This record gives sequence, C-alpha cells and structure tokens, in this order.
Amino acid sequence: MSVTAESDFANAGQKMYELLTELFPIARSLTGDGVRQTLQILQRSIPLTVHEVPSGSRVFDWTIPDEWSIRDAYILDEHDRRVVDFRDNNLHVVGYSVPVDRVMSLEELQPHLHSLEDQPDAIPYVTSYYSKRWGFCLTHRQRQSLREGQYRVVIDSDLRPGFLTYGELLIPGTTREEVFISTYICHPSMANNELSGPVVTTMLSRWIASRPRRYSYRIVFIPETIGSLTYLSRHLDELKRNVIAGFNVTCVGDDRAYSYLPSRAGDTLADRAALAVLRDNHPEFIRYSYLDRGSDERQYCSPGVDLPVASVMRSKYREYREYHTSLDDLSLVSSAGLQGAFTVLHECLELIEENRIYLSTNQGEPQLGRRGLYPNLGTKNPHRQANEILDFLAYADGSNDLIDISSIIGVPVWRLYSLAQTLEAEGLIKERQTPEIRG
Amino acid sequence: MSVTAESDFANAGQKMYELLTELFPIARSLTGDGVRQTLQILQRSIPLTVHEVPSGSRVFDWTIPDEWSIRDAYILDEHDRRVVDFRDNNLHVVGYSVPVDRVMSLEELQPHLHSLEDQPDAIPYVTSYYSKRWGFCLTHRQRQSLREGQYRVVIDSDLRPGFLTYGELLIPGTTREEVFISTYICHPSMANNELSGPVVTTMLSRWIASRPRRYSYRIVFIPETIGSLTYLSRHLDELKRNVIAGFNVTCVGDDRAYSYLPSRAGDTLADRAALAVLRDNHPEFIRYSYLDRGSDERQYCSPGVDLPVASVMRSKYREYREYHTSLDDLSLVSSAGLQGAFTVLHECLELIEENRIYLSTNQGEPQLGRRGLYPNLGTKNPHRQANEILDFLAYADGSNDLIDISSIIGVPVWRLYSLAQTLEAEGLIKERQTPEIRG
Amino acid sequence: MSVTAESDFANAGQKMYELLTELFPIARSLTGDGVRQTLQILQRSIPLTVHEVPSGSRVFDWTIPDEWSIRDAYILDEHDRRVVDFRDNNLHVVGYSVPVDRVMSLEELQPHLHSLEDQPDAIPYVTSYYSKRWGFCLTHRQRQSLREGQYRVVIDSDLRPGFLTYGELLIPGTTREEVFISTYICHPSMANNELSGPVVTTMLSRWIASRPRRYSYRIVFIPETIGSLTYLSRHLDELKRNVIAGFNVTCVGDDRAYSYLPSRAGDTLADRAALAVLRDNHPEFIRYSYLDRGSDERQYCSPGVDLPVASVMRSKYREYREYHTSLDDLSLVSSAGLQGAFTVLHECLELIEENRIYLSTNQGEPQLGRRGLYPNLGTKNPHRQANEILDFLAYADGSNDLIDISSIIGVPVWRLYSLAQTLEAEGLIKERQTPEIRG
Repeated sequence: MSVTAESDFANAGQKMYELLTELFPIARSLTGDGVRQTLQILQRSIPLTVHEVPSGSRVFDWTIPDEWSIRDAYILDEHDRRVVDFRDNNLHVVGYSVPVDRVMSLEELQPHLHSLEDQPDAIPYVTSYYSKRWGFCLTHRQRQSLREGQYRVVIDSDLRPGFLTYGELLIPGTTREEVFISTYICHPSMANNELSGPVVTTMLSRWIASRPRRYSYRIVFIPETIGSLTYLSRHLDELKRNVIAGFNVTCVGDDRAYSYLPSRAGDTLADRAALAVLRDNHPEFIRYSYLDRGSDERQYCSPGVDLPVASVMRSKYREYREYHTSLDDLSLVSSAGLQGAFTVLHECLELIEENRIYLSTNQGEPQLGRRGLYPNLGTKNPHRQANEILDFLAYADGSNDLIDISSIIGVPVWRLYSLAQTLEAEGLIKERQTPEIRG
Repeated sequence: MSVTAESDFANAGQKMYELLTELFPIARSLTGDGVRQTLQILQRSIPLTVHEVPSGSRVFDWTIPDEWSIRDAYILDEHDRRVVDFRDNNLHVVGYSVPVDRVMSLEELQPHLHSLEDQPDAIPYVTSYYSKRWGFCLTHRQRQSLREGQYRVVIDSDLRPGFLTYGELLIPGTTREEVFISTYICHPSMANNELSGPVVTTMLSRWIASRPRRYSYRIVFIPETIGSLTYLSRHLDELKRNVIAGFNVTCVGDDRAYSYLPSRAGDTLADRAALAVLRDNHPEFIRYSYLDRGSDERQYCSPGVDLPVASVMRSKYREYREYHTSLDDLSLVSSAGLQGAFTVLHECLELIEENRIYLSTNQGEPQLGRRGLYPNLGTKNPHRQANEILDFLAYADGSNDLIDISSIIGVPVWRLYSLAQTLEAEGLIKERQTPEIRG
Repeated sequence: MSVTAESDFANAGQKMYELLTELFPIARSLTGDGVRQTLQILQRSIPLTVHEVPSGSRVFDWTIPDEWSIRDAYILDEHDRRVVDFRDNNLHVVGYSVPVDRVMSLEELQPHLHSLEDQPDAIPYVTSYYSKRWGFCLTHRQRQSLREGQYRVVIDSDLRPGFLTYGELLIPGTTREEVFISTYICHPSMANNELSGPVVTTMLSRWIASRPRRYSYRIVFIPETIGSLTYLSRHLDELKRNVIAGFNVTCVGDDRAYSYLPSRAGDTLADRAALAVLRDNHPEFIRYSYLDRGSDERQYCSPGVDLPVASVMRSKYREYREYHTSLDDLSLVSSAGLQGAFTVLHECLELIEENRIYLSTNQGEPQLGRRGLYPNLGTKNPHRQANEILDFLAYADGSNDLIDISSIIGVPVWRLYSLAQTLEAEGLIKERQTPEIRG
C-alpha cells in the first residue's frame, strides 16, 4: 500500500482491500505469531513500533495469558480422511484450544463441536481464552454429515509463557493534546469484524502523517480487551492527561450501513465530531446506545478511565448476520465500503483539527459590503452566502465552536472551515485563546 | 392486627381490611373523642405516642379551634319520626355544627340542608371548622321526600376549649436521617379517603419495625391541615434537618388505579423512589401534577418548609365519584386494594433503604469469567446476565445511585439490590462514602 | 395626535393611522431632510431630542456616509413625457442615487432599471448606500411598455458631507434600570415596514409617560443599521449597564398576523415578556428564529453588545408579499392593526413593570378563610379562585417571578397583577429585595 500525496486518498479503497486480502489468511489469535506477522505486514505501510508484554503480567484485574501456538488441527474419520481441517479455514479450531490427540466416538466428540443450526453453511468463531478447553467449529451441514464411528482428533497447539504483542504509532503534532485511535488484531480470517479495522486505521495513519497536524496522534493495533487493558495499564496517566478525542475503529468494511456508538459520556469531542460528520453526510446513519457497546470502548470508557472514545462503523458487530462466522469473508467487504468508512473517519479527524472557538472582533455587524462579502444593492431578497457569513458572525461569540455554530445555523460544518479562514484573514474573527484543556 | 414475621405481610390485606372495618363507625372529626378512640385502637398494633395540643394555640398563621363533641343529632317530623338521624350515619351532621334545638318550617330548614342533586343516593361530607354553623347532610332522595310542615332540629354538640390530638411513632435506624410518613385521622365514616390511610400506615409501621433499618422513621397520625401545621410548627427544624424522603399516605384502599402526586420540587428522593417502583410494577399508573394536590403536602411542601414529601395512592381524592360522600364505604375498598398500596409503599421504603451510590473499584472491566460471572466460552451471542453486570459496573461511577442506574440500563431497580450485594462481596464495587446530606 | 388620559389609549389606533398618513408622503432616506421632517412631526406628540452626527464619523466598523438630498428625478421619452416620475412615487428612484442628466437608448438605460417580474404592478424599493450608483424603480408593466428610442434621465440629487439625524427620548423612572425601544425612520413611502414602527413607538412613548414608571425608558428613532450602530457606538457602556429589556419596533401596522422574533440569547426578560403576552392573548402568533432576523437586533444582539432586544410584530418583514414595494401602502395597514400591535407592546411593557419575585411570608399555607379568600364551608368541590391563590402562594418561593408562576400554574400573567397586590396587602407575600441586576 503506497500513498504519497493527499490526492491519492481518493482511491484508497482499492489499496485497503488489497491489504485486507493479504492479511486475511493469517491465523491470528490473542497472542502469538499471527499477531506478529500481521504487524510486520502493516509495518511496510506505517512505522509501527511493536511491543511485547510477558505472559503472567498483571493488567488491572487481569493477567496476560500464555502465548498460543497452533500448527495444525483436524478430525480424521475411519478412512483417515480429514473431515474437518484447520488448513481449510482457521476458524475450524476453537481459539486457544489445548493440544489433543485422541480417538473417540462421535458421541464423545459432540460436546467439542460447535456449529450454528440457523446458519447451516457458516463456521462459527469460538474462543476459550481463559478456560482450558479444546474444540472444533464446523458448518452445521458438515456436522450433520458425520456418521457414527471412531474419529481421531488432533490439535497440534501449545500454550506456553510468551508475550502479548501490540503495535503503536505516535505522530507528533504542534500541541501535546492527542487524538487516540485504537483497532484490534486478534481475530483469525474474518473481514468486516476484524480486518477492516487495521487496514482503515493504517490508511488513516498515512493520511494523518501526510501533512502537519495541530494535534498529536496515538494509534494502537492491539488484541481486543486484554490488549486495551494492557495498553491502558501502561499509559493511563498520559492518556487521561492528553487525549481530547478518540475512536475505536472496528467493522468499517462493508457498504450496508453507517453506525455510531457513543462514548460512555456521550458528549465528548469525539461524539460531537462523529455526529456532525454523519448528520451532514450520511443522515440515514444508525445511532446506537452505549448499552450496545461490545469492543474496546468497554475499557476506554470505564469509570475512572473515562477516555473520550466513540465508534464510527459500517455494519456494527452483532448486528449483521455474518458476524463472527466464516461468512464474514472477503466477499462481505468492498473497496467502496472501506473507502466510505475511511472518508467519514478522516472527516471526523479533519473536523477535530479544524474545530475552533472564534470570537467576532466587531461590536455590531461588520460592514461586509466594502469587503466584497455582501451585495451593495439593497433589494427585497436576502442573499444566501452573505447570510451565512452574518449567521456565523452572530454566533462567533467566544462560546460556540464550529460544531455548535454548524448546528445552530444549519450549515454543514465543512463549509465553515474556509468561511472561518476568510473571516479570520479579514480580521473579522479571531480564535479564542484558551489554556490547553488537559496537561 | 397481629403480624410477627416478615412473611406474614403477604397476607396483610385481610388484616388491614378488618382493622378498617373496626375503625369505620367511629365519629371522627378534627378534634375530640373520635380521634382519641381511633388512636387507642391503633395503639393495639403499634406503640403510638399520643400528643394533645390545647385549643387556642397558635400554629403558624392558624389557631387550633375548640374541641367538638357530638352526642346526637336528628330531624323530627310532625309525627316525631327521625327523618334524618346521626345514629344512622355520622355524615348526617355538618362537621363542627354548633348545638341547636329548634322547631322550624321546611323552608327555614332548607338553607341548613346539604345534598347532591347529581348523586341522589349519596350523603355528602360537609364541614365548617372555622365558621360557626349548623347543618344536616342527607341524600337528595331523602331531601325531596320531605313534606311541607314543621320540623324539630336537634344537634346535641358542644364546642369548648380542649385539645387537638395526634399520634406519633419514632422508629430509630442506624442513621439520624429520617423517612417521614404522614396520614390523617379526622374524617368520619369514609373508607378510601380516609381510613385506608391509617390502616396502611399502621401496617407499614409494623413492616418497618420488623427488622433493623438504615434510616430512622417518623410516622404521624394527625388531623388534616391543622394537624400537619401543628406538627410542623413544633418540629420544623428537626424535620428540615433530618428528613430525606417522605410520603403522605391517603386514598390507598380501592383497587381501581395507582396514582402518584409529586412533591412541590418534583425530583426528591421520595419522588424518584415512587416513580421507579410504579414504573417497574404498575406502568399504567396515573401521574398527577403538584397543581392537583389537596392533602397535607400543601403544608409539607410549602415554600420555606420544603419537605421531600410525595404521594402514592390508589384512586386519588376528588378523582373518584364516591369521594367525600357516604358511598366511600366499606364496599369501595378491599383487602386486595389495601395490599396493593401497602406493597407499593413498602417497596418505595425498601428502595430508599437499598439505594446507594456505588463506585467501580477497577479501571477497565474486571475479569468476571474467573469469578463465575461471565461465560468463558466466547461465541457470537451476548450473555444477558453478564451484560447486566457489565452495564451496572459501567455506570457505577460514583455519581449514579441505584435509581439512576436502573433507569439508564433499563433493569428494574429491585433486581439491582442483590446484584449490588454480589458485586460488593466480590470487591468489584464499593459504596461511595458521602457526608450525611442533612444533620 | 393628542392623548391625555390612559383611557384614551383604547382608541389610539385611529390617531396612529392619521399620523402615519401624514408621514407617508415624505421622501425619507438614511440621512437628509426627510428624516428631519419626520422627526419634527413626531415632536408635536413627544418631546424628542434630535441629534446629528457628521458624515465621515467612524461608528465601529462603519463610516457615516454623506448626506443625500433629492429634489427631483424622472425619465423623459422622446415626446418629453415623464414616463417615470419621482413626484408620482418616491420609490421610483434608487435610494442614494448620484446625480445624472443624460440621454441614452433604452438598451443603455435597462441596467439602471429595477422591476419585479412576478409582481408586475409593484414598484420595488431599492437602495445603494455604500456604492455610487443611480437607478430607477418602476412596475414591470411600466417597464414593458417602454419603446425603443432615446430617453433623457434626470436625477437632481446630491451627496455631500452633512449629518446622520436621529431622535431620542429619555423618560426617567424610579430606578436607573432601563427599557430600551428602537424604531427606524429611513424608508420612503412604505407603511407596514416602516411607518407603523415610528407611529406605534410614539404612542407607546405617550403611554409610558402617562404615569410614573418603575423603570426608565430610552426610546430612539433612528435610520436602520447605520443609525443603530451610531447609537450603540455612543452609548454602549450605559446601554450594557442599564438595559434590562428592549424591543425593536417594526412591521406593526397590518392586521394579518402576530409575530415574535427572539433576541440572540432567546431567554431575556424581553423574550419572556413577549412570549407570555402573546401566548395568553394571541396563541396563534408566529414564532420566528433569530436566524430569521433582519432589522436592528442584528446590531443590538451582536456578540459583545448582547442587549436583551426582542421583536413583537404583525406581518414580519420579508414574510409578506407587499414587503419593500409600493404595495406596502396605506391600504395595507389599518387602525385596528396598529391598535393590536400597540396593545401587545404596552402589555409587554406593563408586564415588565409588574413583574416581581415574591416570597410567601408563611410557613405552611396561610388561613385564607378568615381573610375572606377561601370558602369556609368544606365540600367535595374545589374552589377555583381560592385554588389560584393557593397555587400562587405555593410557587411564591423567592425564585419564581410572575412570568414563571403564570406558566407553572396556567393562569394568564395579567390576572396575577391584582392577585399579587391583594396578597401583598394581606401580608401573605412580600417582594424579594434583590440588588439591582445591572448598575
């Protein structure tokens, strides 16, 4: 994925889809070489720093589990045919399965099998990180075709002290205040939930780095839950001090819906930016409640942590039929779907960058006519552009930011960026200088 | 009425109905022996202290009136038949009637008669506490059957300096903060408005005393208006210092409706508890405005007094046809109606007892799985009970109490009592220690 | 216009209509003798002080333009007939036209002509204050009747250093706090927008002066925009210190609608008074947004000025078809229309005068019965007037003013004026003494 000029981002969808395709086959899990491989591929596009935290480390209420390695897994029937084979699809083995090599009857095997009766062609995604188990996942149709008899089940895995691996990218801006972006890299071959997240985040990272920014950016690629807890436990003070807005990037690959899930507080800068962009550009977006949460905002927004992290998604986890099954595959996502999510997210970041509180420098209205900003022939018809300027100035009172003004005067917020520049250049408004909110 | 174990309260309705039946015939008024007799009967169930305040005492803007005694009252026709007889129904005489023994024509008598043209079979309830009058109340049918002629009218009453009598029960809890309960005992033979109030309050008193309580309870049985003013004038400072919630108990005997009338402030702990219980258990309840008030909240919530007193009722005074007539009799109330009101009111008290502000002790989510509170097999389906725990923890942020959390996460508040206990036992939440709000 | 006793204001409509008729023919503009003549006529009714500010003076971001004089203007056809003639209608010349005396073809003339295709019988009102131009306005029908040929165009005007002229009236009250009223006098022959404003304001001034007032009144008759900016630039500090409410009086002459346009803040005393009066008396009124503004509130409510100025109108500028054309003439306004606006506006002023925060002097309800304010016979029916008193007392808690109480208890605010007087006379409420809000 090579993108050099900002103009290239218009065709970022195809590049993201190609990167997603390359990452798809890797057998990722919470820990292990799948994560490492994934990060190495991303490092070709962005200068990620990779961190490893030892198994057994305490992170808040949790302990980092052993590292899981999986080489092969299959079920042999009495004719030594692999009736279930990890090489066909890495979803076939329950994540974090302990090793096994036994022969057993179908009846003994059944409690170790997972399938979905109402989705008979889908292999479900099942994990057992914190309880020692082994198991196989298969389509319900496969399961029903199994005949009575003896089966040999082999899982060639091991669980040994190792590391939890994650990637981090810091892009300094002109202020210490930070925008935080988090995505996860712990699911095997699934496309919308999960790989859309890292590939869109990679493209966002390139977009951020493509020119100087006001805010600093902290971008992490972590395993879900234990990874966000680990990152929080190591960086809590600086995150609480510096982060002014954040996004959890997940489920950003299909082209069916736009979705918004608020932070716990619900009215942070991240929430306000997401809502402003979605309302202006995708007013049909689906608005979820924080009660519908299910990803790392559970950690980032927990009491005492309270980071301003919201989610802007396409079809939200749990809300689409293919979720957490083998049907969440390369056909479910598209370059258009990825491009759409990338666009909305970089518009959110752009809004956060552009957002200011302005103060009108005049008492009374300024004389726009002599600046060429107002028609100098008075007739009975109001003048739309001049009115936008006057409305902007009327609410540039040192208390409203651009998001507020956009909402009050009913003009899309992106139209206000250049308007503000023009008015500032004319000396008609100035930015309200505030002490940094944090730090 | 004897109730010893908490389990007995499940059948409290029948006991309350029996007590109501016993109290029904007594000729109560604002003052006098009817009030004393009523309190004596209640003292068999609960250890009420009886107080007497002399006639002529100033209470705020008012003066306690003389004590009224009524022995007999009747209207004799020319054949010496009692055509209206106080012995038939104590509503037949206007409350606080001065004595009279005169013979007069029907025309002279008419201005002293009260009946209801649109309820021709009801004897209305009429009083004249603060203006010297005499009068008789009768059904409109009775009135129309009176023929021209001479009538002898006799009211054997007297109005002499005496006392205003009320009952008080203090049940100490582990804190000085108090819940205040007020009911009135000044109406003659009427069932929903009034006797349901004292009998439900008596049962609530027994329920409160049946086990140790966090809060102290102050329970008063008073004549309406002048009684609440009297009580306030003698206890205002301590009430304002200690009372965290209160209820005026009236109209709690029929089984047609549940009703809520707010305190003047509208958002006190009493209001929040009443609304939470009614919404969870009787969502069809009728919500009145403080402008619909008509009982002692007029005094308790007046400016400068401002006690947090709300009302939870069955069919509200003035809003049912039988109100303030002889039709508000033993057939209008039922043991089921009384039981329902008792249940809602003790659930309000229980909620006030259980209500706490909790604070999550972890940063990030705790690991519920190793505590057996979360399924340790990750699949595509969320787990309802585990989600309730996580939602509870997400909002246990030191600012929300149980009522807030119930409303935010959409779980009935009573389900949160044991949940909070479990989480506190696991060390996952702790109660926020606050200085006592009052005193 | 002579009005001496308050009772005369009942027939003020006819007097206002006569004054409007007298003022109608004058050729007003932003500056010049038309303004002076107008103010002289108003001085017959009210003791206006006339101020003159020299051309070239800076007022905030603006400069007062040269004074414009217009003596005659016409277009002659080849037969020396005046096909367009300023003497017929002073709207025929573009306001602030520079002098011209030229012969030209119709084609050359066309860019200097203004007409309305969709209102072919209306002469539009056009001005060019800040850009040197000349032009004629005519009906579209007139314009279409012009034949090819040579035309002589004559505008006998001049633009020379002179003055901006405005009138000011100060009516002292018992406090230094002020109510501010502004109206404009810069439009030529138009009735609803504009002359209704000065004539209603003149009548309001007489009404204010007809008896002693609590507040001081500052009333200005100014040219729109440059006049309000001029007045603000000379009085900003005292206006910000003293003004507690203000109204911009414009479009108050027809009888089609009542309209309300808020101040920028939206909840000032002026807004609350306007809404209370309109809701009680004209609930069908049209409520505009501050985004619909278009008159001097643009200056009075601008950031940093922030005066509490709202507008109560009949048919609002821009919202009626005749606006800014020759159709806004004497037939569009009526004495009933003027009377209605005058009534609503003086009711707003009366409300501001009467509005107080009261505090109940009793704890508990007072005994209204012994004061003759409550029926002393207790029956089952509530008593409406007594209930209004009790409701008033319940909310007279030292935080609600009359406008709040009216809204809470659902009683028109004007009914509360005498109620408050009665209760104050009885010693049941007292006014909360507050330090002056401003100054």
